[in-house]
Amino acid sequence: MKNNTLKEIATELLKAESVLLFPHVNMDGDTLGSCVALCKGLRKLSKKAYVLIDEDVPLYLNFLVKDYCVRDMSKIKNPDVCVAIDSGEVSRFIKRKEEFFAGKKTMAIDHHVSTDPVFDFNYIDPKASATAMIIYYLFKEMKVEMDKEIGEALWAGITTDTGNFQYSNTTKETHLVVSELYDLGIDHNKISINIYENVRKEKVMMINKIMDTLTIFAKGKGALCYGTLEMLKETGATPDETEGVVESIRSIAGVEVAAFLREDDEKEIKVSMRSKSYANVAEIALRFNGGGHKNAAGCTINSTLDFAMKMLINEIEITLNNE
Amino acid sequence: MKNNTLKEIATELLKAESVLLFPHVNMDGDTLGSCVALCKGLRKLSKKAYVLIDEDVPLYLNFLVKDYCVRDMSKIKNPDVCVAIDSGEVSRFIKRKEEFFAGKKTMAIDHHVSTDPVFDFNYIDPKASATAMIIYYLFKEMKVEMDKEIGEALWAGITTDTGNFQYSNTTKETHLVVSELYDLGIDHNKISINIYENVRKEKVMMINKIMDTLTIFAKGKGALCYGTLEMLKETGATPDETEGVVESIRSIAGVEVAAFLREDDEKEIKVSMRSKSYANVAEIALRFNGGGHKNAAGCTINSTLDFAMKMLINEIEITLNNE
Repeated sequence: MKNNTLKEIATELLKAESVLLFPHVNMDGDTLGSCVALCKGLRKLSKKAYVLIDEDVPLYLNFLVKDYCVRDMSKIKNPDVCVAIDSGEVSRFIKRKEEFFAGKKTMAIDHHVSTDPVFDFNYIDPKASATAMIIYYLFKEMKVEMDKEIGEALWAGITTDTGNFQYSNTTKETHLVVSELYDLGIDHNKISINIYENVRKEKVMMINKIMDTLTIFAKGKGALCYGTLEMLKETGATPDETEGVVESIRSIAGVEVAAFLREDDEKEIKVSMRSKSYANVAEIALRFNGGGHKNAAGCTINSTLDFAMKMLINEIEITLNNE
Repeated sequence: MKNNTLKEIATELLKAESVLLFPHVNMDGDTLGSCVALCKGLRKLSKKAYVLIDEDVPLYLNFLVKDYCVRDMSKIKNPDVCVAIDSGEVSRFIKRKEEFFAGKKTMAIDHHVSTDPVFDFNYIDPKASATAMIIYYLFKEMKVEMDKEIGEALWAGITTDTGNFQYSNTTKETHLVVSELYDLGIDHNKISINIYENVRKEKVMMINKIMDTLTIFAKGKGALCYGTLEMLKETGATPDETEGVVESIRSIAGVEVAAFLREDDEKEIKVSMRSKSYANVAEIALRFNGGGHKNAAGCTINSTLDFAMKMLINEIEITLNNE
């Protein structure tokens, strides 16, 4: 299969009478914001459109749901097109696989560099800082008149996927597109409060317990924290609510390599690592049969938490001393 | 005194041969970023220019300093113009008052709504989301050719003063100006890491201790934390390193009013309050002879920490129950 032009994608969607949109699992602001924006845009063209989900929408994205998200296909049988949004492989929506292939045509709209074009239609642009950016350009191509609601959904996707315009994927174009969203009357501050000031108390308590375990080593260049099953039980937090903690650890002045160890089972320790600039954490992860990129990597260590910590600190020290 | 046009400000600076720039105390990214950008721009026009400071530059802004910042006037005696940047009243640089008025002319460039034009020349634009935005437009007026270094200093000012483009002061123009900074070749991600991943370990430990004191009340709509002198001593953090913690408290889902109490002395409790949307915390602060705005206010309570907490929780509950 090949990568299509945006014009071909637009033509196909304009031809369709019914479209079902598929966000990926562990949904984030970009996948759901892009789905909701596209759904509203298609409805403005009098098409039948819904977003099919198979998990609870996280609290911070609830404002997007409205009547767009459904859990079954009762409202849209045999859709003309099924579109994977912000992903391009079935494994990212495996529980909805059957529903996806029930579409007369399949399509992917995505910006991940690792995505291959495997569906009937594919638009994968790794240079786009968010899938929401692609949806914006797609609307221009389809001549959809965007409105405030669409603008806010796109803004949500862009701001979350670019780390509030701080990550290196942010470009001149990102800011130019966002500047145009303001013409739609978006209330970016209200959306921002919805997204970022909606942290469960249980998560706050869990992050606090995790940060209490902070160990600094390698002359201040290494930092490590851990979270146990016991801590999850005590706080009522869910394992995925520990996401982002490794970035907090890295934000400490002088720290080059940050590691977070999550006890998923008695002898199953999930490790996330981040480096600030020069250290290659993918190399460290590889030594434990994990993988990733130079600045972000992970692995699973099948040992006790204590032993995993000792081994990891040792390996990180070796890497930092070799620089 | 009156508010000048940007053209008048530009003309005055173009006439000057030596210019001394004054950031406000408790310096932040906008005041120092704007100073350094303007300093470099003036030097590009072959003028003698320095930034006069009277306090240590915070770790996260150290990358801006280079040879721009000085602590005395030995390098620039009797400057033609002295400019207050990101403030417009002497109280904001009181220790450098004498040096400021040693300038043949005085000037203010600021965006605070509360600033009055009291110097020889004044440009105060409360609609600008950051003073760095004004410096950008000033350079256009002065026909200064901006470079990467200027662009990165302006970006630092804009991103910090707009809360990474999330606060309500962010506008279409903010994004348009930033999009143009990219043409200068700025490495926004590198600057962002400098700014946000430079948190002292002592501060991390202090914030953690503070968050451990979390009390939720008023059916989840009120939240309060405190920090004691003892905790500062234990962690080695400075009192100003507790800044930002009240915003973290407010970010908890369901919380409308957040309060942070800092023990500055045995019977001197500094209170910061934030509300998420409808509650008026300025009204609560007023009951303790404090003040502020609807969503951000503060006061000082001269009692023990325990008693201050009890009184405050009581007043916040009254306010929340009246809504």
